[in-house]
Amino acid sequence: MVDELTVINMFLEIFGQPRKLFSEIGDDVAWTKKAVKRDKFAIKADMLVGKTDVPKGMSLRQAARKSVVACVSDFACKGVKPWGMLVSIGLPKGFNEEHILEIANGLKDARNEFDIEIVGGDTNEASDLVIDCIMFGWGKNIVSRDGAYIDEYVLVTGDFGLPPLGVDILSERKKIRSPRLTEKAIESVLYPRPRLNFGLIACNRKLITAAIDSSDGLAISLYELAQRSHVDIFLDELPMNETLKNNNELSEKEKREYTLYGGEEYEIVFTCKIKDIPKVLKVGEETGTPVRIIGRTVEGNGKVFFKGELVERKGWTHFKG
Amino acid sequence: MVDELTVINMFLEIFGQPRKLFSEIGDDVAWTKKAVKRDKFAIKADMLVGKTDVPKGMSLRQAARKSVVACVSDFACKGVKPWGMLVSIGLPKGFNEEHILEIANGLKDARNEFDIEIVGGDTNEASDLVIDCIMFGWGKNIVSRDGAYIDEYVLVTGDFGLPPLGVDILSERKKIRSPRLTEKAIESVLYPRPRLNFGLIACNRKLITAAIDSSDGLAISLYELAQRSHVDIFLDELPMNETLKNNNELSEKEKREYTLYGGEEYEIVFTCKIKDIPKVLKVGEETGTPVRIIGRTVEGNGKVFFKGELVERKGWTHFKG
Repeated sequence: MVDELTVINMFLEIFGQPRKLFSEIGDDVAWTKKAVKRDKFAIKADMLVGKTDVPKGMSLRQAARKSVVACVSDFACKGVKPWGMLVSIGLPKGFNEEHILEIANGLKDARNEFDIEIVGGDTNEASDLVIDCIMFGWGKNIVSRDGAYIDEYVLVTGDFGLPPLGVDILSERKKIRSPRLTEKAIESVLYPRPRLNFGLIACNRKLITAAIDSSDGLAISLYELAQRSHVDIFLDELPMNETLKNNNELSEKEKREYTLYGGEEYEIVFTCKIKDIPKVLKVGEETGTPVRIIGRTVEGNGKVFFKGELVERKGWTHFKG
Repeated sequence: MVDELTVINMFLEIFGQPRKLFSEIGDDVAWTKKAVKRDKFAIKADMLVGKTDVPKGMSLRQAARKSVVACVSDFACKGVKPWGMLVSIGLPKGFNEEHILEIANGLKDARNEFDIEIVGGDTNEASDLVIDCIMFGWGKNIVSRDGAYIDEYVLVTGDFGLPPLGVDILSERKKIRSPRLTEKAIESVLYPRPRLNFGLIACNRKLITAAIDSSDGLAISLYELAQRSHVDIFLDELPMNETLKNNNELSEKEKREYTLYGGEEYEIVFTCKIKDIPKVLKVGEETGTPVRIIGRTVEGNGKVFFKGELVERKGWTHFKG
């Protein structure tokens, strides 16, 4: 395996030293050059493992970007502005410099896209590819999962169903004749787009009462909001992707399954007071984010219904192999 | 494999929710309940991989504690007071609840020993055991590796040579008849003790000009200080462990190799102005930390000599298998 110093130097060549705020990479700890006075501090780690989190057909560069997207998406729905990140990497023995450059470029893509400094990390030899992205940042008004009350609206950004179909296509469990749907589904898996700007602005303006990122699937995300907030959720419509909806190769049941139980969407599922709906839609317009109302909260204790029928509490199961 | 929620619940049962400052574990991000105003912020990640970082004979509980020790040791030598930590864990498929409880207890041991809240993390299935410990904290006066000038003293906490011998004994590459040395060497591997109190106080009082943790070995740590600070280091003595020194089963060469090139010591290797030596020794007394002068810095550009002879720039190579 390439040794750690070589890896670090290759990484530095690709994405350079932190441009501001932080000490240079190369010491054991990253720190700010000046003292800090800000809002609430937030931090999270998301470990991507090759075997379970990288679908067939995803490049290392895309996988590395994805490890950052997972953190960005969680920060987005809580209104936490990322301040920096660390990346701990486990490299399989057979990995060569080309593999490592791919990973470095994927991290650089994410850094540029979301404007988050990479301030440090660690590398090791491991049996699997492991990318543990650690992100930290600040939020004035951090939104949790338990803040919804009854008589609020339930909304989502974007739409659902494409990424799990894409995973099935990539792993050859599913074949779709429509080139348009195939392409869109694959693109949605390989290049997920978290809703950072929308989340930051909407949380900052205190328009969101509870939120969760949908990467484990729509149904389980709704259940989480409902259970933590001690309400029931009544869905009036499913935020199914239009291209998926219009396809006639898949059965209605399949489409619903993909939409409700698929996951990997990196959208924001959230609740909002009725009076704030116009303001939320305005944030959607400002940030170019599609936002739609899919239901409302009612008295209850953690159940989710779609048109009167109980939705199963099941979520994204990591694909194997 | 045990699913993530079960793992989290088992962990919470062992070490509970953060007791203060931080939001409850169970959301995707950890954050402080109140806004923060403090010193320089520092963060690091250290990834322990079963195959390369856990010697034969080390329990999972000890391995989990060790993953924290690695971070504590780096914070100690920089004068960073830990504020909290996250732990991202990759669990091999065969792991059962007993294995997970062992890991949880090891993390709890470390939390209690060093008084650092565990505020979050992530768990995944992986081929190897992976424990990525992420620690963050604050420092008024953060010491780096490049602050040494000429005509300063070079010091270490503790002594050297036992842990690499212990690793060799545990992996049956070496057999020592002396039960006392065998026991001490093994103990030093299984239960490393970083020098947090000494480091925090000495850095806070601005007594240390440059420092590094010795976990990669004494020689390489000295080289790092010398190269980064653009000085040469002249060693007058080796901080060899006394029991090791008095043993007559090992050759003088072997003992020197263990002391200089072994690693896994988690001691602080540092430089200090001559005038500050009494104050540094006093911090040693206050914190019960053995401190000794082993050499001095002279004009040069990154070389290390012992009694006039160039020391090899080689360090700790991770044991395999």
